[in-house]
Amino acid sequence: MGTEFLKIIDCDEATDIIQKLFDENFTSYSEEIQVNDAYGRILFEDVYSRMDYPPFDKALKDGFAIVASDSFNASEESPNTLDVIDFLEAGSVSDKEVEPGKCIEISTGAAMPKGSQAVVMVEYAEKFDDKVNILTTATPLQDVAKKGSDIEEGNLILKKGDLLTPGKIGVLLSQGFETIEVYKKPTVGVVSSGNEITLQGEELSFGKIYDVNGGMIKNSVISCGGDAHFLGVMRDDYTEVKSKIVDCLDEVDVLLCSGGTSAGLGDVLKHVLEELGEVYVHGISVQPGKPTIVGVIDGKIVIGLPGNPVSALMIFNAFIAENLTKLSGIDKNFELNIVKGKLTKRIHSQVGRMQYQLVKVDGNDVHPIFKDSGAIFSLSTADGYVKIPKLVELVDEGEDVEVYLFN
Amino acid sequence: MGTEFLKIIDCDEATDIIQKLFDENFTSYSEEIQVNDAYGRILFEDVYSRMDYPPFDKALKDGFAIVASDSFNASEESPNTLDVIDFLEAGSVSDKEVEPGKCIEISTGAAMPKGSQAVVMVEYAEKFDDKVNILTTATPLQDVAKKGSDIEEGNLILKKGDLLTPGKIGVLLSQGFETIEVYKKPTVGVVSSGNEITLQGEELSFGKIYDVNGGMIKNSVISCGGDAHFLGVMRDDYTEVKSKIVDCLDEVDVLLCSGGTSAGLGDVLKHVLEELGEVYVHGISVQPGKPTIVGVIDGKIVIGLPGNPVSALMIFNAFIAENLTKLSGIDKNFELNIVKGKLTKRIHSQVGRMQYQLVKVDGNDVHPIFKDSGAIFSLSTADGYVKIPKLVELVDEGEDVEVYLFN
Repeated sequence: MGTEFLKIIDCDEATDIIQKLFDENFTSYSEEIQVNDAYGRILFEDVYSRMDYPPFDKALKDGFAIVASDSFNASEESPNTLDVIDFLEAGSVSDKEVEPGKCIEISTGAAMPKGSQAVVMVEYAEKFDDKVNILTTATPLQDVAKKGSDIEEGNLILKKGDLLTPGKIGVLLSQGFETIEVYKKPTVGVVSSGNEITLQGEELSFGKIYDVNGGMIKNSVISCGGDAHFLGVMRDDYTEVKSKIVDCLDEVDVLLCSGGTSAGLGDVLKHVLEELGEVYVHGISVQPGKPTIVGVIDGKIVIGLPGNPVSALMIFNAFIAENLTKLSGIDKNFELNIVKGKLTKRIHSQVGRMQYQLVKVDGNDVHPIFKDSGAIFSLSTADGYVKIPKLVELVDEGEDVEVYLFN
Repeated sequence: MGTEFLKIIDCDEATDIIQKLFDENFTSYSEEIQVNDAYGRILFEDVYSRMDYPPFDKALKDGFAIVASDSFNASEESPNTLDVIDFLEAGSVSDKEVEPGKCIEISTGAAMPKGSQAVVMVEYAEKFDDKVNILTTATPLQDVAKKGSDIEEGNLILKKGDLLTPGKIGVLLSQGFETIEVYKKPTVGVVSSGNEITLQGEELSFGKIYDVNGGMIKNSVISCGGDAHFLGVMRDDYTEVKSKIVDCLDEVDVLLCSGGTSAGLGDVLKHVLEELGEVYVHGISVQPGKPTIVGVIDGKIVIGLPGNPVSALMIFNAFIAENLTKLSGIDKNFELNIVKGKLTKRIHSQVGRMQYQLVKVDGNDVHPIFKDSGAIFSLSTADGYVKIPKLVELVDEGEDVEVYLFN
C-alpha cells in the first residue's frame, strides 16, 4: 500500500540540494517602481547622482547676503551699514546683484544672489528702513553651502543591494528620481491539496477541515519578501494535480504545494513531478516533515510541503524561507533568527533522524510544546523550534538550546 | 525680522507633551480584513474558537481503523485477520460501521468510521484480497486525535494585541475565519511646504530643489505601521497653508507637515495652527530640529517638522515614530532600536541644548557623520543618531555611546 520514498536524505544534504536548485533555477530580475513607494525594497542597480547638490550656492541661514569684505571689522559697537536692495525667499531669484555697500535680505534655502559671498545671520544684523547694520564679521562662504558641496554630479550614491530606508529614499528624491529599479519580488504560488480541504466561507461537512496551509504559507512567503498568491485547492487526483500544476507554473517563479506528499494513498504529486520534470528530494530524515518533496519543472521549482500545518510551517522555515528571501534581494542574516535559552522540560527524540521540537520562548526560558504534530493550536503560542540532531536521544531540562524563530 | 518661538522646551518635556497629545486625541479603531491578507497586522479583538478541533475523531496515520480489542495479543508470529469492508480517504465518509472482526482501511486525516477506536499503522498490517493481518496490539485511541482534543469550542485562542504571524493566521483559518478585526492603521497625511519645493518629474528651475520630505516622511510613517498619504506641496502662504490643512484634516488622523516652521520668513504654520486650533509645542531645545511645532485642530494632531530633511528625519524618529507605532496597535520595544558602540571621532556640542549627531554604525564602531545639517547625502550612509545631552560639551573618541537607529 502506498509508494516508497525515493530516498530519505539527511537535513544537511536536503538544505544543500534545495539551495543549489534555487541558485541554478532562479535569476533575480528587476522592476521599476515609484521611489515614493519603495520602502523596504532592494535596489537592483547602482545609482549615480544626476546633478550637483545643492544645485546652487545655498543660504543656510535667514539673514543678509553680502560681499564678505563688507563685514570685516564690523561689531556691535561699530556696525557696518549696508543698503538692502532686495528680499529673496527660498525658491525665488533676484535680478539684482550684490556689490560692496549693498546686500540682499535672504531666507534659508534661497540661492545666493549674484555677487554675494556670505550670509550674516539675522541675529547679527539690525534692519531699519532700507538699510541694515551688520554687527559681526563674516568670512567668505559663511553660512553658505556651495553648489555640489554635498555631492557632485556623477558620484555613486547608492549601491545595488541597498535596502531602501526612508533616508535612502530621501537621497533618491533629492536627485529628482521618480522611479527606480528594484528587485522584483519572486512570484510564489501556493496551492493546497487534499480531498478533505474546504475553503473558509464554505460549509464544513463531516470529515472535512478548513484549509490552513494556503493562507499560512502564503503569509510566510510574504514574510520572506515574496509576492505570494494563493491559487486554490486541488483534489488528490493525478489528472487534477497535473493540470493545476501546469496552469500555475505559467504564473509563478516558485510553486509551493502542501498535502499529498505522504507515502500513503494521496501520493500523486511525486508522480506528476516525475512526469513533467525531475524530483530532487523525496523524503527528508526529519520529524515532522519527512514527506517533503522538491522538484523542478521547466526551470521552475515545485515544492511539496507536508499537509500537516505545523510540519508545513517548520519545513518552510527550515528549508525554504532563506532561499526565498535571497530571491527578493534581501541580504538578511538568518543567524538573527536564532535565539538561545534554557530548556524548561526534557525533550525525548528518536535516534536516527533530526527532530524539530516546537517551542515557546519566554525570556531565557524555552518551553517545549508537546502536542501531536496535528495540533494546530500550538501555533497560537509557538515562537519557533529547537533542532535535535539525529544521534541525540534526549535533551534535558536546563540544557542550553538554540531556538530557530519562525520568520 | 521673523517671529519668535513661543517657548523653547527641553526634549524630555516635548516628548511628554507629544505623547500625551497622541494619547488624548487618538482612539485606535478597527477594520475588518481578510485573514489571508493579515500578515503583520494586530488583532483588535479576543478570538474564541468556533468549534472543536479537530472537528471529528481523526486518523493520525495511514492504516486500518479497528475495534481495539481485535488487535489484542496480535503479533507478527500470530496475526489477527480482519475483513476490510471499506476504504476511507481523508475528506470521505463511510456508511459502513466497524464491528469486531471487521475494519476499514483509512488514510491520515480521515474521520474515524463509526464503531472504530484505533488505527493500526500500515507498517503493522499485511493486506491481501479483502482481508488484512493485524501484526501488533493497538490500544484504544492509538493514532487517533479525539474531536476537540486540540481545542474545544468557545476557548480563547488569540488575544487582542496579538501580532498576526503566519502561525496565528493558520490558527484562525483552521476555525474557518474568513475575516478578522484588526487595528486600523492610522491615516497619516504628509505635506511639504516651501516655495522652493519642486516635485520629481517637473523641471527644476534655478533656486529650487526637489521635494525630499514628502516621500521620506511618507515612508517613515509606513515603517511605523501607518497608512501614509503624500498630499502634495503647499507654498509658504497663509491662505494656501490654511486651506490645505483644512482640506487634509478631512482625510487623516494625523498630519505631518515639513518646512515653514523656522522663525524666519516662512513661518505661517504656527499662525494657521493658532487660528484653527491650539499650539502645544513651538520650538524644542535640540540641534538640529529646534523649529518643530505641534498643535491640535479639532482633535487631530498637526505636526510641523523642520524643512531640512536630515532634521526632519531625526525629529520624526525622536518624537513621532513611537507614538505612531502605538496607534497601529504595535507593541514594539523601541529599546531594541538602541545599539551600543564606541565613538571613532570626538563630537563637540554646544552646551544649553540637546544635540543629535548623525552616525554610521559599523560593528562596534560608531562613526559620526560631520556635515552641515543640510547635507542630504549623509542619509545614504547614516544608520541613526547619538544624543548629546544639553550639559555635555564634548564626547571623546573611544567613549561608549548609544545609537538610536532610524526606524
